Amino acid sequence: MTDHDRARLDYANLLASHVDGGLEAARLEGDLAVRFRAAWEEVQRRRASGDMGFLELPEATEAVAAVKDVADGFGQWFEDVVVLGIGGSGLGAIAVRDALLGPFWNERDDEARDHFPRLHVVDNPDPSTFGRLLDRLDPGRTLFNVVSKSGSTAETMAQYLVARAWVEEAVEADRVRGHFLFTTDPRAGALRSIAEAEGIPALSVPPNVGGRFSVLSAVGLLPAAVCGVDVDGLLAGARDMMSRCREPDLAGNPGALLATLLHAADTEAGRHVHVLMPYADRLRSFAFWFQQLWAESLGKARALDGGPAHTGPTPLASVGASDQHSLLQLFIEGPKDKVVLFVSVTDRGDDLTIPAGHPDMPSLAYLGGHTLGELLDTERRATAEALRREGRPNATILIPRVEAHALGELFMLFEMATVYAGALYGVDPLDQPGVELGKRLTYGLMGREGHEAPDIDDGDPRFIA
Amino acid sequence: MTDHDRARLDYANLLASHVDGGLEAARLEGDLAVRFRAAWEEVQRRRASGDMGFLELPEATEAVAAVKDVADGFGQWFEDVVVLGIGGSGLGAIAVRDALLGPFWNERDDEARDHFPRLHVVDNPDPSTFGRLLDRLDPGRTLFNVVSKSGSTAETMAQYLVARAWVEEAVEADRVRGHFLFTTDPRAGALRSIAEAEGIPALSVPPNVGGRFSVLSAVGLLPAAVCGVDVDGLLAGARDMMSRCREPDLAGNPGALLATLLHAADTEAGRHVHVLMPYADRLRSFAFWFQQLWAESLGKARALDGGPAHTGPTPLASVGASDQHSLLQLFIEGPKDKVVLFVSVTDRGDDLTIPAGHPDMPSLAYLGGHTLGELLDTERRATAEALRREGRPNATILIPRVEAHALGELFMLFEMATVYAGALYGVDPLDQPGVELGKRLTYGLMGREGHEAPDIDDGDPRFIA
Repeated sequence: MTDHDRARLDYANLLASHVDGGLEAARLEGDLAVRFRAAWEEVQRRRASGDMGFLELPEATEAVAAVKDVADGFGQWFEDVVVLGIGGSGLGAIAVRDALLGPFWNERDDEARDHFPRLHVVDNPDPSTFGRLLDRLDPGRTLFNVVSKSGSTAETMAQYLVARAWVEEAVEADRVRGHFLFTTDPRAGALRSIAEAEGIPALSVPPNVGGRFSVLSAVGLLPAAVCGVDVDGLLAGARDMMSRCREPDLAGNPGALLATLLHAADTEAGRHVHVLMPYADRLRSFAFWFQQLWAESLGKARALDGGPAHTGPTPLASVGASDQHSLLQLFIEGPKDKVVLFVSVTDRGDDLTIPAGHPDMPSLAYLGGHTLGELLDTERRATAEALRREGRPNATILIPRVEAHALGELFMLFEMATVYAGALYGVDPLDQPGVELGKRLTYGLMGREGHEAPDIDDGDPRFIA
Repeated sequence: MTDHDRARLDYANLLASHVDGGLEAARLEGDLAVRFRAAWEEVQRRRASGDMGFLELPEATEAVAAVKDVADGFGQWFEDVVVLGIGGSGLGAIAVRDALLGPFWNERDDEARDHFPRLHVVDNPDPSTFGRLLDRLDPGRTLFNVVSKSGSTAETMAQYLVARAWVEEAVEADRVRGHFLFTTDPRAGALRSIAEAEGIPALSVPPNVGGRFSVLSAVGLLPAAVCGVDVDGLLAGARDMMSRCREPDLAGNPGALLATLLHAADTEAGRHVHVLMPYADRLRSFAFWFQQLWAESLGKARALDGGPAHTGPTPLASVGASDQHSLLQLFIEGPKDKVVLFVSVTDRGDDLTIPAGHPDMPSLAYLGGHTLGELLDTERRATAEALRREGRPNATILIPRVEAHALGELFMLFEMATVYAGALYGVDPLDQPGVELGKRLTYGLMGREGHEAPDIDDGDPRFIA
């Protein structure tokens, strides 16, 4: 594998040599290298203590074999696979589907899908979406993959109960369990109990793998494998990137550089908004996966030492070239509080040549003979340069093409950057204590046993216009 | 129409009486009322000078009639309508489609669509998307609605050239023009010239209506009308909201309150990130429409008086309940730099009841008997309350249901809030000068006549890892 087949990080436009207000490159061999070394040690410590299960996933051959067994075996009986999972239980599967199955997967006929099933990821309990989806499905040919690590996620459990009754109404009682596949904790939680009591097949999420780091576990791999995605390629890409991001030296470690440069931009230069802007429709959902990873891992009230922190850059998912006509005006002229991370795709596969037409019209004539891929790539370069000239730091992740290996690299690049960034910010990148209050209030309002109805301050008529 | 049939703004959780760090309510009758009065006068001035064409759109009966003529006439000959338009030429049509046609429109069969066409909005010249779409279409039954106000948008022109050659290959020469419909300036630009030279039907965007304010012109209305959307309802909703947002008094004017409260939160309390978080999948695309409107209108380097500004809050599109499992941790615990704007939907139409199941499992039992809509709404209330308790200001826009009238209200509410906010920030909300440099660089790189090849600083091998 040559350098050009690997995902690479071009960070020149984050440096003072290239952009006004950038970082002095010498610091990457000075204080920032020292700081990263400490962060690296913190990550090693937590890895050794068993907290970082996501680093084991690319080599979890048994778990991968279990996924493939299910996917290649009874998974192929179905026309439609419906993933019920929210947050980290849905975003990874959506990112893989949109990147690797390509557009219109669910609209293609059986043959155009190589007889693999359609893949629906219902990551919101919105009756408008879920009801209309059920209307379209044949219960006899539908598999529900219910994904919840805890086995008790309210939204997912609610959808499961709806789906279960819907299946029960349509198929014989002894066949109901064959329409469900759970992905959950290996021992604990309601889903595991139901699986054991009823003989419903269930894959495991390792207890030390958090939702937002679970895309390379059964959570993301089963939906991928059941639709024929090259999961070995995905995992090989993740392994390759992991080996490059494992070193304690900052130079040459793309995950470390990404974490260090973005952390410094945020904390030293007030670049609080971190935009991820791939120039490829297929990576749009990847940017939403990144949003969760970055926001939930780094947005913390408490530092590791227990002191107040209130850290966390704001991740913003964007897509080029579309958002040049939407968000770019703000990126170029607004407050100097952003870093833009582009993703460039070298080879677009079936590119489309722009035919020469209307040669008399200057606003059309120059386009003829180029390809749409060239236009996208040219716009990305022009946009990065325009940002650079206006003193707006940016960087570019270069991938050869949107395929399994590169996507595996991207997942692991950002996962490792995230745990390094957690150490740099001095927070725990693996927890999410802030969402508990909202959950407790919901339980109370919904009348869950042991939860008092809360006193909620809303609906003050003086302040409704 | 009662109050409960109208969109309403509940802003209690932005006020000091309800949230730590909120605004003193008395200021809404004091300095903020005075400041808004000045902003209102600035908007009146620009309206009088003819700059605010979007305010005329809900009453532009001739233009609406022209749209309906096309939509009800030759528009109905097609199975697929493909909108080629980027930024403001695409986001409005996508928002209307996803809100009002509902999920899976393009996957439904002819009958389930009431024989209206499928609607594709290709807002990015990505060959991977566009090529796969063309593969699926029958050129003889496809209409391309090419939308570019200037008539020269690079991405859209490139897609038009590809589409044109694709149609020319498949249908007889004299029928080619019948597969195109332009939406562009009434007089100027390449598209208008081509339309006139070749007899291609063309609808007009008023010259004083900018792209991001054009959803209620032919830009957004034609794609809506051709699929049977109630455009009269959309316009009636916009008119109703306009009349409520026209008054110079802050109290009772939801557009003025939204602008004033968000501006104050940003400039006085450092709440730079404005999150729009509808609890409805159907409004997800509306949140992306808002992102452009807010970012491109308020993100400005120069003040109206020519001085430096570098203003502009960062809009962030989000969806509840999904993003409770993604971004919420950051909103609750991260920096106190955000305001969250919820959208609540009272009546969800075909709601789904959660069946009682697994009564022995406490983590499932409490859900039975509620509906999915209740769960969503309860989570929204719980999340707003959790934010409030943690000193995170938020507000809620209440709409009765996701339908044409309410969507028209939402469009106009945010459009008017945007021009008022522009006046409060002291910038021009109607221009977008920052994107010109990138366009010029692109022209140079693509070899457009009269544009020199630029010297671009990229690909420094020292800084690629």
